[in-house]
Amino acid sequence: MERWQALTDIPVYPHLVGLAQHPFDLTSPGALSPARMHQYCSSAAGIDLLYAAQRLNDEVLAGLQELADQCGLVEQFQQMRRGAIMNRIHGFASEERQVLHTACRDLFVENPAEPLASGQAKREITKLRAFLEDLENDILTNVNGRPFDTMIHVGIGGSDLGPRSVYEALRAYKQPKRQVFFVSNVDPDDAASVLRQVNLATTLVNVVSKSGSTLETLTNESLIRRAYEAQGLDPAQHCIAVTGEGSPMDSPARYLRSFYMFDYIGGRYSSTSMVGAVMLGFSLGIEPVLEFLEGASLMDRAAEEPKIQQNIPLLQALLGVWNHTFLGHSTVAVLPYSQALHRFSAHLQQCDMESNGKSVSRYGESVALKTGPILWGEPGTNGQHAFYQLLHQGTEIVPVEFIGFRRSQYGEDLEIEGSTSQQKLVANLLAQSLAMAMGKEDENPNRRFPGNRPNLILLADRLTPKIMGALLALYEAKVVFQGFCWNINSFDQEGVQLGKVLAGRVLDLMGGRREEDGADLSPEMSLIKRAKMGRE
Amino acid sequence: MERWQALTDIPVYPHLVGLAQHPFDLTSPGALSPARMHQYCSSAAGIDLLYAAQRLNDEVLAGLQELADQCGLVEQFQQMRRGAIMNRIHGFASEERQVLHTACRDLFVENPAEPLASGQAKREITKLRAFLEDLENDILTNVNGRPFDTMIHVGIGGSDLGPRSVYEALRAYKQPKRQVFFVSNVDPDDAASVLRQVNLATTLVNVVSKSGSTLETLTNESLIRRAYEAQGLDPAQHCIAVTGEGSPMDSPARYLRSFYMFDYIGGRYSSTSMVGAVMLGFSLGIEPVLEFLEGASLMDRAAEEPKIQQNIPLLQALLGVWNHTFLGHSTVAVLPYSQALHRFSAHLQQCDMESNGKSVSRYGESVALKTGPILWGEPGTNGQHAFYQLLHQGTEIVPVEFIGFRRSQYGEDLEIEGSTSQQKLVANLLAQSLAMAMGKEDENPNRRFPGNRPNLILLADRLTPKIMGALLALYEAKVVFQGFCWNINSFDQEGVQLGKVLAGRVLDLMGGRREEDGADLSPEMSLIKRAKMGRE
Repeated sequence: MERWQALTDIPVYPHLVGLAQHPFDLTSPGALSPARMHQYCSSAAGIDLLYAAQRLNDEVLAGLQELADQCGLVEQFQQMRRGAIMNRIHGFASEERQVLHTACRDLFVENPAEPLASGQAKREITKLRAFLEDLENDILTNVNGRPFDTMIHVGIGGSDLGPRSVYEALRAYKQPKRQVFFVSNVDPDDAASVLRQVNLATTLVNVVSKSGSTLETLTNESLIRRAYEAQGLDPAQHCIAVTGEGSPMDSPARYLRSFYMFDYIGGRYSSTSMVGAVMLGFSLGIEPVLEFLEGASLMDRAAEEPKIQQNIPLLQALLGVWNHTFLGHSTVAVLPYSQALHRFSAHLQQCDMESNGKSVSRYGESVALKTGPILWGEPGTNGQHAFYQLLHQGTEIVPVEFIGFRRSQYGEDLEIEGSTSQQKLVANLLAQSLAMAMGKEDENPNRRFPGNRPNLILLADRLTPKIMGALLALYEAKVVFQGFCWNINSFDQEGVQLGKVLAGRVLDLMGGRREEDGADLSPEMSLIKRAKMGRE
Repeated sequence: MERWQALTDIPVYPHLVGLAQHPFDLTSPGALSPARMHQYCSSAAGIDLLYAAQRLNDEVLAGLQELADQCGLVEQFQQMRRGAIMNRIHGFASEERQVLHTACRDLFVENPAEPLASGQAKREITKLRAFLEDLENDILTNVNGRPFDTMIHVGIGGSDLGPRSVYEALRAYKQPKRQVFFVSNVDPDDAASVLRQVNLATTLVNVVSKSGSTLETLTNESLIRRAYEAQGLDPAQHCIAVTGEGSPMDSPARYLRSFYMFDYIGGRYSSTSMVGAVMLGFSLGIEPVLEFLEGASLMDRAAEEPKIQQNIPLLQALLGVWNHTFLGHSTVAVLPYSQALHRFSAHLQQCDMESNGKSVSRYGESVALKTGPILWGEPGTNGQHAFYQLLHQGTEIVPVEFIGFRRSQYGEDLEIEGSTSQQKLVANLLAQSLAMAMGKEDENPNRRFPGNRPNLILLADRLTPKIMGALLALYEAKVVFQGFCWNINSFDQEGVQLGKVLAGRVLDLMGGRREEDGADLSPEMSLIKRAKMGRE
């Protein structure tokens, strides 16, 4: 089998390093010409990517195309979609798994890329459809025959952030008779706050954990089950499960219904599996869920185009590599001009940073270059009144990814002073992109804007379920392409293990359950004492 | 008047640069000794700051004390509290204002630092008390005599993020009969989504804008007023205002009640003014609001201690300067182990980045060193399942500020497998602090943790209104101290102006209202066309 190379060993790498010494100057007169605006725009699956405000020119783009080709980025994506074992560290113990989140939505063509996994996905969709019909037709009700009108979605990390951000994004389309709450944190106040707001008698509890052993999720499930018992209700008549087949949670006696996810789907890539689909189906109905999946599948297929200007996930990935690896910017801000996307950056933060926050290559070697950036962001225009000061005039340069829509979701808008709110929203997005790129001179140094702050715009007509699916898949593929480029394994998360082990040890010491020589002098015990958390 | 110096001109600066070449190694055996844990801990106003997991020793601490003394950090803070014109760029046109957010809560001693401003704050508190009593006693009701049970808080930036984060933090204490919604974004879907959830007939609309001219807020106010009119209700019977005296919104005919804020309080520092207090009073009642203010005032006074180990805002500020300026880490993560603080990092992001994301000194000179960091964060334990991978094993080192509480807010908890959820929560916080500091060797390179990731812990007994006030004031003072240290003006925000100007221009061009020579070839027009946002 072919050996994937470190980025520094790719032939075009030194050429790009050279080009990065003199990146395109966005502040020079006429830099943002109509021709450049027109040319630096690509589209796929209903989403336009406008990148004239990046610090590059045709020569850099050609170099990035060579980089894509020489790294075999599209080839690796194709292999991934077809079931290759991409989750692996060669030569060391590792997860050794396929990476097939794309198969969950590869349901709309006759010949899916990986038929086995798409077949499993279809079976789960069929179960979901039956479940939703049973709810709709009052076949599945509470013990008194009343319909379930509320769902508590219990999960954490990949089983929480993605589903929650999509739920919020599509809330405009939800069925009015149904509501959803989320519990994730082991903080008991998280569950307590939700339990005060729901009527348990008409509530379904959707417990989501691939392993069936996530501490936070099982703890919250227990808290909620005891709340049922305290009201004289049988929790088994209210709980459903999304888990791996054969996990400790795969127990029909304890759950009304069970849906499966599979070990070839990583948590942070699982929003289009049953992890997201069960809750979304409850909220929206089955058809919008299928549209969401179809949007994602369209983007997955666009990600197999070899030309970067016809492949927006690949292009966006390479623009990120240009900014991060070659221009040296260590963070990236995702700023959606859409209140519905207010949790999308938090999801992407997980998807990106848990995937690419790594220090060893796919062969266990220390990486020579920086890997994944710090991703953060909040919606515009809110952010304009918050942290944009630093974006415009700070000493850190933050590449920005704007997301916008030409039309609103609700369509409830008013023209005030000659423009609608939606027009004001989009006008602000466009203006920010230009302001960051072009800057402005001023004789008052405190009113000077240096410009040359690279940014791009993702633009679609309206945030529908289909566009949301495409947007999600766009970012998933972007992260995967960047991981390939940095030659790291974007699909494991060994970095979360140490904290888990130490937390168990601290808990034991706090509870007096661990008696060890020298434990009293250990950092753990010192910290417990200092924090006044020990048993008196 | 004395001239404040650039950090690079402070005598102790080169000494600290030298010490930063070999920062304390947290991974060496015995580094986190009981003595270090015990010694590296300070307290104020009910909050402990544990900083043994910072990369420093006594010599660095002594250097940081010298830095504080030589920069006159406490002296400047004292001047600020006493009404000096700290919001100024010497030699250039600037806001030329006092900075007196601390005066809003300096209500609990006989001799406040700035009596005039504290007197104004007291008068507003008296008005607020009367307003809340009138609501309570059904003196202020809707036109049908029904009590107001809902408030829509309309504001953006400083009039939104701070108040909203404190509201969420203290939701456990809210009066069950009252609920609050927030509308901030000019995105029409933001207001539409809230308007679907409330009964306007029993709703108060709290419009918050210091200038009385904030585009988003006025637009949303208009949207909401028209929703009242569409229901045949008189909006003047439902709207109240928080604004500057004499602003365009200071118009009793249009508002049931008006509360004032003053131009010596910046938006991002305004949570303890009427900007936060009116909404919080509606939700919680007057007494918790006074406790909140008292907690903040206690921390303000602690911030005047000259010794850094007795002044936790100053100490925390200097630890941040050590990590950012001397060790070169460009971001900082604030990770509260408390679901109630889920929006606190978003508020701090504004408070910190809008204050210190600057490139010129208080004398209009370009700064030689990097100024404010990028601040981001989400609550733990959620974050552990999201971006902590990068914190532990990524190539970017992110200094972390943990926040935790020994007890939960609701007190509704269960012992599962030998520990309560609250114990699990705190154990995780302590374990993460140790894991980041100490790291772990492993023969599998993918399971190796390099450690030496600096972090600190803020710990209090319980997230009460008083502790929330102290925590907020702690961060406000931290930001102010860092701004003094970098010799920048932390109180203006010129960097938001260009985007506003360009947005107006883009809106005009979109609406066809601007006819200029060459407008068709301008970047604005090209982008509008490319975005397909022009009038057809």
